Amino acid sequence: MSKELVFGHQNPDTDAIVAAKAFSYLENQLGADTEAVALGEPNEETQFVLKHFNEPAPRVITKAAPEVDAVMLVDHNEPQQSVSDIADVTVTHVVDHHRISDFNTAQPLFYRAEPLGCCSTVIYKLFKENNVEIPAKLAGLMLSAIISDTLLLKSPTSTPTDKKVVEALAKIADVDYETYGLAMLKAGTNIDAKSEKELIDADAKSFTMAGTNVRVAQINTVDLDDVFKRQAALEAAAKDENATNGYDLFLILATNILNSDSELLVVGAPTEPVEKAFGKSLANNRMSLPGVVSRKKQVVPPLTEAFGA
Amino acid sequence: MSKELVFGHQNPDTDAIVAAKAFSYLENQLGADTEAVALGEPNEETQFVLKHFNEPAPRVITKAAPEVDAVMLVDHNEPQQSVSDIADVTVTHVVDHHRISDFNTAQPLFYRAEPLGCCSTVIYKLFKENNVEIPAKLAGLMLSAIISDTLLLKSPTSTPTDKKVVEALAKIADVDYETYGLAMLKAGTNIDAKSEKELIDADAKSFTMAGTNVRVAQINTVDLDDVFKRQAALEAAAKDENATNGYDLFLILATNILNSDSELLVVGAPTEPVEKAFGKSLANNRMSLPGVVSRKKQVVPPLTEAFGA
Repeated sequence: MSKELVFGHQNPDTDAIVAAKAFSYLENQLGADTEAVALGEPNEETQFVLKHFNEPAPRVITKAAPEVDAVMLVDHNEPQQSVSDIADVTVTHVVDHHRISDFNTAQPLFYRAEPLGCCSTVIYKLFKENNVEIPAKLAGLMLSAIISDTLLLKSPTSTPTDKKVVEALAKIADVDYETYGLAMLKAGTNIDAKSEKELIDADAKSFTMAGTNVRVAQINTVDLDDVFKRQAALEAAAKDENATNGYDLFLILATNILNSDSELLVVGAPTEPVEKAFGKSLANNRMSLPGVVSRKKQVVPPLTEAFGA
Repeated sequence: MSKELVFGHQNPDTDAIVAAKAFSYLENQLGADTEAVALGEPNEETQFVLKHFNEPAPRVITKAAPEVDAVMLVDHNEPQQSVSDIADVTVTHVVDHHRISDFNTAQPLFYRAEPLGCCSTVIYKLFKENNVEIPAKLAGLMLSAIISDTLLLKSPTSTPTDKKVVEALAKIADVDYETYGLAMLKAGTNIDAKSEKELIDADAKSFTMAGTNVRVAQINTVDLDDVFKRQAALEAAAKDENATNGYDLFLILATNILNSDSELLVVGAPTEPVEKAFGKSLANNRMSLPGVVSRKKQVVPPLTEAFGA
């Protein structure tokens, strides 16, 4: 079998980087020839994780077709979140924990998705099912991915399975996951060191809702004031992104990871579906969303419904 | 959790009926509240199977939303092959072995697909992973589904995994699968009892190839003469279907399931791409295709290529 590339989504977060490494390792143990790559550089949180476990960053690619005929996707399936030439290669495997959207294949494939908090949790199950042992370092990486995606098991996307898997991986990696997890999350919230463009680009995803191009960025912080003291500059940066990339609507979800509250900043139009989605009015382009921490579970579904998509 | 319906595709074959029963049983063992239903009456082969294992036919539904909010799909994902009001319910689970096409969800879901010969083979793996025992009767039904989809493991869609699972299920069901399988396949080939229209409509799929509307019907038989003694009437029926439904080209693939040879009957135009696809000339509107048994793997791909689509 010829070589395949394994990668997560654009603007990779810790899970996108780690899930690719974990699934590539598993597939290679099962006899495949794969390489884990990434569609962007690791963010600060992921850099903290890779450094902690002494693991190199994956090679970054912008196209797959010049290298391989076939690829495996982790932590995403939507083409606009994938490699730019995804239409030119065959997707043979997907492991994911998101909705399925605009994903079409010509041939049957391996597709494994579960509504769990993290793609690395699904991959942990695949290791168990295939009786492949998880090395201690990889366990530490996978543990980090689950802590990242579930905000230390506090996100509503977190499930009892994620908790069990975190405990099992912490044992293999010999890590006190609560202490380590908090240090890791804080490492990813270094707001002051970043430009507004960097802040709204680091963890952003695109969605098409009833023909409207919607970009939803999330900024994790330990203090919402650190974000909103720069509101004007953030709005200007989002406006600029809209103009450059053809987004109609740019949503910035700033999330306080310590108390699990968010504040939403909205740039572009139409704003009515946003107000409808959350049953609240925008004031100064903002609305507070107490208890909201998950883009996937608490922002995209009500928004999709409000757009009538 | 509220009740969910589990069903396979429209025009159900044995796998569509059985996979729904098997997955529903598994989910209920795991704590869900589900009912296996079907989107049509069992065909003759499936009737033979249900009678052999003394299993009732599933209830037939035409709509899901009046009964439930959520459903589980087996053996299909494409909306046009599903229940008519699929857009009005939430799909929480899919178990399949086909390509993914036009399938979109608003929420993360459980999706399990593998490129294996039969959906019931995937479900067998799910039983194993969840340590749920397969009752002897259900093993017999699942065995029948795999034999049906893989033509007794002789189709090119059949994999080594399908063979292993057939052997394991035959042991649980205490069935000599070769003898039983042949009897079962023969039961599905009762040619003489059917009209020409029924014969070319029972297992037919439509494709658009470079703007040409192509219909490909398959008729399984134990004697090709049983089909071609009615050639003139079959051609008339196909011509009628072309006129009524706007097909340009009607291909009837008659397959001898005993020796895995087929004979192709072609009605309509253009016929050149058909001759090009198989490197053979038509004589009396027919060509023999020794070793061809799979529409999906051996007919549609070369035809698509010959049309330059």
